[in-house]
Amino acid sequence: MKLIRSTFVLLAIALAALTTAYAQDPLPSWNDGPAKKAIVDFVRVTTETGGTKFIPPEQRIATFDQDGTLWVEKPLASQILYCLDRVSVLAKDKPELKNIEPFKTILSGDRAAMAKLTMPDLEKIAAATLSGMTTDQFQAQVKQWLATAKDSRWKKPYNELTYQPMQEVLTFLRANGYKTYIVTGGGQDFVRVYAEQTYGIQPEQVVGTMGGTRYGYGKDGKPILTKEPKLLLNDDKAGKPEGIHMMIGRRPVTAFGNSTGDRQMLEYTTTGDGARLAMLVLHDDATREYAYGPTQGLPGTKLGIFTQALYDKAQKNGWTVISMKNDWKRVFAFEQ
Amino acid sequence: MKLIRSTFVLLAIALAALTTAYAQDPLPSWNDGPAKKAIVDFVRVTTETGGTKFIPPEQRIATFDQDGTLWVEKPLASQILYCLDRVSVLAKDKPELKNIEPFKTILSGDRAAMAKLTMPDLEKIAAATLSGMTTDQFQAQVKQWLATAKDSRWKKPYNELTYQPMQEVLTFLRANGYKTYIVTGGGQDFVRVYAEQTYGIQPEQVVGTMGGTRYGYGKDGKPILTKEPKLLLNDDKAGKPEGIHMMIGRRPVTAFGNSTGDRQMLEYTTTGDGARLAMLVLHDDATREYAYGPTQGLPGTKLGIFTQALYDKAQKNGWTVISMKNDWKRVFAFEQ
Repeated sequence: MKLIRSTFVLLAIALAALTTAYAQDPLPSWNDGPAKKAIVDFVRVTTETGGTKFIPPEQRIATFDQDGTLWVEKPLASQILYCLDRVSVLAKDKPELKNIEPFKTILSGDRAAMAKLTMPDLEKIAAATLSGMTTDQFQAQVKQWLATAKDSRWKKPYNELTYQPMQEVLTFLRANGYKTYIVTGGGQDFVRVYAEQTYGIQPEQVVGTMGGTRYGYGKDGKPILTKEPKLLLNDDKAGKPEGIHMMIGRRPVTAFGNSTGDRQMLEYTTTGDGARLAMLVLHDDATREYAYGPTQGLPGTKLGIFTQALYDKAQKNGWTVISMKNDWKRVFAFEQ
Repeated sequence: MKLIRSTFVLLAIALAALTTAYAQDPLPSWNDGPAKKAIVDFVRVTTETGGTKFIPPEQRIATFDQDGTLWVEKPLASQILYCLDRVSVLAKDKPELKNIEPFKTILSGDRAAMAKLTMPDLEKIAAATLSGMTTDQFQAQVKQWLATAKDSRWKKPYNELTYQPMQEVLTFLRANGYKTYIVTGGGQDFVRVYAEQTYGIQPEQVVGTMGGTRYGYGKDGKPILTKEPKLLLNDDKAGKPEGIHMMIGRRPVTAFGNSTGDRQMLEYTTTGDGARLAMLVLHDDATREYAYGPTQGLPGTKLGIFTQALYDKAQKNGWTVISMKNDWKRVFAFEQ
């Protein structure tokens, strides 16, 4: 029986492979050019059985930065906006926060004053908004926020502001046996709440900044996990390969990013043996999205910096730069 | 074309489902009894489309303790044996270790003195044998050890001492769409070295005690990750659900263990909604393996304690106790 079943499975795989060859353009939102070609070629050579660059399915690990790579990160990364909004919610239950810094500054809405907050201030805000509750409560809080919060420019929920061309890359890679991971400086628990619905990426394939939890029991005696104000890993810059090692335990073969925070992930990915693909999204399209590449700059933002040094490194290392303006036929799914 | 491909895939799934119904006994090394029945029934009801206990494939998370649940943990867990053996290797390069405690005691081979080592002593041994090298070097060291080290009773490599009935459970669950995870108090990096070959479990599905790594560059300028003597999570007892949350991000629906170190994982697993299966391996077979259940005891061992309190909790909570003696037709693959 096992034999019969295996035969059917093999038959299906063969037929699927055959039909793939005749499939439609897997990247319809991409203009023809070096970026699109790099992706299509990489997938072809790494999945061709018997080819010199073939990668066995279990090693097909693809990692993606989130903010600025898979969705909009301006004017601020969504998790920062979440924390700021959350302070207002907390202040309803605890009006005394209005007189305590740094909450007072946040609640004032004074952007200039907020920009001057120090790292210890930001840690206090993170501790108040991202810890102290159970993991189930946190999930419910983020879900509720996502259902109502809207981006200030497009007036749409944040998870409608994902880049359609990148969604196509995720789908294309998965259809070819790749496991797609998010590797984000954002909170792992935060991104996991919506990653499955937004990107088709399951919670166990989200690597992010990790805080500790504490196992205990609720009033009903049932087990709970409480989020602690304890940083285990800051999943940014050098933390990205460290987080990849911890969560995945093997080196990716392809990685996508958009800033200096992704440099180490791309270095780590591309120095492995065999075929490798590293890509950087360059935000050079102020009309359809934003322009904050090496030459444009976007004042007042600290995240998502694509410096000249990173651009030069990409050129030197053969990392492909994706020009949002030239390579993407459309940016968002709602554009047509 | 997409439609044609989808049709083939659906056809294959239908045929696979049909042949499964006629498949051979999925658990041939198990005697008929409540333990075998619990596993078979659980898989059947959770995978029957349209059934009241159906679990969607993405939620089919199964977690397994390793030492004493998937393979032999006596006289000592394999990772402890590794660290002890590794001290001898280190002493070849650094003969001065022979005069420095706690290495002096380890190198003396005096088991009575070794049993008296304190927690700070053990931490020094762990730091010396499990950190300071790159992740690639560590992997090579463990591989080399596994290729030569042998168990003192069976004179076989450790990875031949896995329990055949549990291997069948892993295979049976995976054939039914379950993702199988190891959740071990052992080192995550250690177990990942052999988990794929030994259990068919990929590195990203191994959750264990986690140490930090530090990203940097080797002499050739290539990126390296160096293992640090920094404990991020002790994946035992309460650490197991905490580790599961960090690494998987969702609650398992079935969990297997064998000791008080697994109690919290089983509690966490079984208090979720819907069908749940929790099982504990009871070592009550001194002839074919070891007996160290509540009534037998096995002096001088600190790990893998199946106390009377755990037995009572299992009875109360409906966790199935697997009697190695009565439920397993054979223990090891090499037995027949």
